[in-house]
Amino acid sequence: MELSKRVQKMQFSPIRKFNPIAIAAQEAGKKVYHLNIGQPDIETPAAFMDAIRAYQPKVIAYGESGGLPELQDAIIKYFGKIGAELERKDIIVTTGGSEALLLAFLNMLNDGDQVMMAEPFYTNYNTFALEAGGSVAPITTSAEDGYEYAKRELLEKSLTPNTKAIACITPGNPTGNVLTLEDMKVICEFAKDHDLWVLADEVYREFVYDGRKLASFLQLPEYADRVIVVDSVSKRFSACGARIGCIVSKNEEFMSGIMKMAQGRLCSSTIDQVGAAALYTVDDSYYKAVNEEYCSRRDTIHEALMKIPGVVCKKPGGAFYMTVKLPVEDAEDFLMFLLTEFDDNGETVMFAPASGFYATPNIGKDEIRIAYILKKEDLKRAAELIGLGLEAYKAKKAK
Amino acid sequence: MELSKRVQKMQFSPIRKFNPIAIAAQEAGKKVYHLNIGQPDIETPAAFMDAIRAYQPKVIAYGESGGLPELQDAIIKYFGKIGAELERKDIIVTTGGSEALLLAFLNMLNDGDQVMMAEPFYTNYNTFALEAGGSVAPITTSAEDGYEYAKRELLEKSLTPNTKAIACITPGNPTGNVLTLEDMKVICEFAKDHDLWVLADEVYREFVYDGRKLASFLQLPEYADRVIVVDSVSKRFSACGARIGCIVSKNEEFMSGIMKMAQGRLCSSTIDQVGAAALYTVDDSYYKAVNEEYCSRRDTIHEALMKIPGVVCKKPGGAFYMTVKLPVEDAEDFLMFLLTEFDDNGETVMFAPASGFYATPNIGKDEIRIAYILKKEDLKRAAELIGLGLEAYKAKKAK
Repeated sequence: MELSKRVQKMQFSPIRKFNPIAIAAQEAGKKVYHLNIGQPDIETPAAFMDAIRAYQPKVIAYGESGGLPELQDAIIKYFGKIGAELERKDIIVTTGGSEALLLAFLNMLNDGDQVMMAEPFYTNYNTFALEAGGSVAPITTSAEDGYEYAKRELLEKSLTPNTKAIACITPGNPTGNVLTLEDMKVICEFAKDHDLWVLADEVYREFVYDGRKLASFLQLPEYADRVIVVDSVSKRFSACGARIGCIVSKNEEFMSGIMKMAQGRLCSSTIDQVGAAALYTVDDSYYKAVNEEYCSRRDTIHEALMKIPGVVCKKPGGAFYMTVKLPVEDAEDFLMFLLTEFDDNGETVMFAPASGFYATPNIGKDEIRIAYILKKEDLKRAAELIGLGLEAYKAKKAK
Repeated sequence: MELSKRVQKMQFSPIRKFNPIAIAAQEAGKKVYHLNIGQPDIETPAAFMDAIRAYQPKVIAYGESGGLPELQDAIIKYFGKIGAELERKDIIVTTGGSEALLLAFLNMLNDGDQVMMAEPFYTNYNTFALEAGGSVAPITTSAEDGYEYAKRELLEKSLTPNTKAIACITPGNPTGNVLTLEDMKVICEFAKDHDLWVLADEVYREFVYDGRKLASFLQLPEYADRVIVVDSVSKRFSACGARIGCIVSKNEEFMSGIMKMAQGRLCSSTIDQVGAAALYTVDDSYYKAVNEEYCSRRDTIHEALMKIPGVVCKKPGGAFYMTVKLPVEDAEDFLMFLLTEFDDNGETVMFAPASGFYATPNIGKDEIRIAYILKKEDLKRAAELIGLGLEAYKAKKAK
């Protein structure tokens, strides 16, 4: 009895693997500022629990495999507002964006196939690709360029013979990089020329700053046949634990493949779908307030980080992450130092070392991912702790 | 752009594929008795929604990838009562038994590998096996034998060179067949001799009748290293829409593979887990009442079916399904007749044709699966409609 080859290739989550050490630090009395996980502290709109509390069925029954019609209709209305015309058959509700990604990869990849993706990339993409027998073919970007990748030459260079799809998270995790509609066209044109699927993970869609316009691959009907959009209520409505996402595509053959697998797993949670449908009734002021909050958090932590000598980070345009280059050789070693040897007045800080977000070996070792999901005063203090930690770490190394 | 090979091999759910025709019949004014889907009409214990209504977090946040500790502890206590000693590390909470099965197959199968399983089998096993690049190697059983399969000779005969696991649903879907602890030993001994995993789907565990003892593969510690148990609250507590299940195993390597994938998809629904933990607080009278209800339903429909000439069905010992051989050549054709041409006082009946539950081509075409999830008077009427339908169908064929 052996585990499958795909599982043997997988790593434990690099975002979660330092958790036991952080817990030990906390148990030893240290306060740890967590910049390591994308769990927002913004309150979930009350509409979610209100709808669930009002739901009084005698039996918590299976729903339709494609999703509760009331949720599908809420999603149709939502996308209508950004100019995408959808019907129920174009939407399959999934258990979070995570299940949407897994099903999409299972639907498009054979053993040995690859998905192109800008690195650093959200590490679970590699897990989902491996589950489907595939892997990620990285498009290598750089901190100095703000992790831009929508450049034809760069894309051509990164294409492999086994590439079946190009995946984009926009606004991006872990870099915060945002694609414009023009960038999306560059990517779609490249995909068309090489007969690739375009997998667009747009779960942070509303989180774009500095006057950038909300953009979606669904706003490009001329490429609709190859575009697969993954969406979720997790980040938009600060409802990560609800596990409600969806796959959206106008490609009927693609959706019929997804539906076969969706029927296999029967349905997503009935109650969470009831709550999720209600989330889409919040008015536009909600989106505006959340956007402003994240934007000012980004400004706060970016400004504080820029004061630290040797730090490289082009201010990102969206999401609530930034990838930051530190003046260290090995960010994992620095994080271990912060958690086990360092404190300032009993406080320290935690982030996700970025090397786990790279497919190319031995790059990104001096980078970290920060999720700015804390209040501004905490973000300031967290950045300060990184600065103080760097000084102490350098002093230790110099010994 | 092509869909993956695995998806091209999949079928739409044979349980759900006649739904549009049934809906058309209903829209045309016919009443349809649904025996086709395993959605119980038993009320979900109030504890589920009560716990959810009392849950008042400000943020619906991600939970642990392995499950909420309070739910893991409720599961540990539940299994303790049937003599299985578990720890949290032995349990990973999943999004229904469905996700548990998919992750288990992804964890054990490589491309071309097979899972042995008695046919007729729960058709979604084939979907999950295909998702993992594998397939089901059928152990062919017969209606006349009550679909028994725990016989060493039969198992040896069905073994293929690529078999990596033997999967058992007990009590069974779609046959209602129940394994005794002795049967389980036969299966485990066979698995040991051929170095196979034993995947035991025990989601109907409490539903055993006629004095049969509740049995679990977890009661055989001598085989613990190869036993993987899939469990769920769906059927036990009539909470199918909650999508909460789990994988249980003492094999640490196996569980670490599952955990890598569980971290990839982050967590199962937080709210449903809160409700599920509360379900495990119902007292023993709940299990007894539900068991008695299903047992008397089984007796009711079995007795009524036995009055129909030519019907073969050995009374099954558990779950809430039975597979029934009808005196027709093609049960799908008969079902189409029932839905589109037949009625008795404006009423007709629907079941799942069993051919979709077989991997071997061209067998089981005269069999159907019945789920006895209706009230007794409805079950009697449904059986009567099958009898009347058969007469009318024969008369039509004779023309």
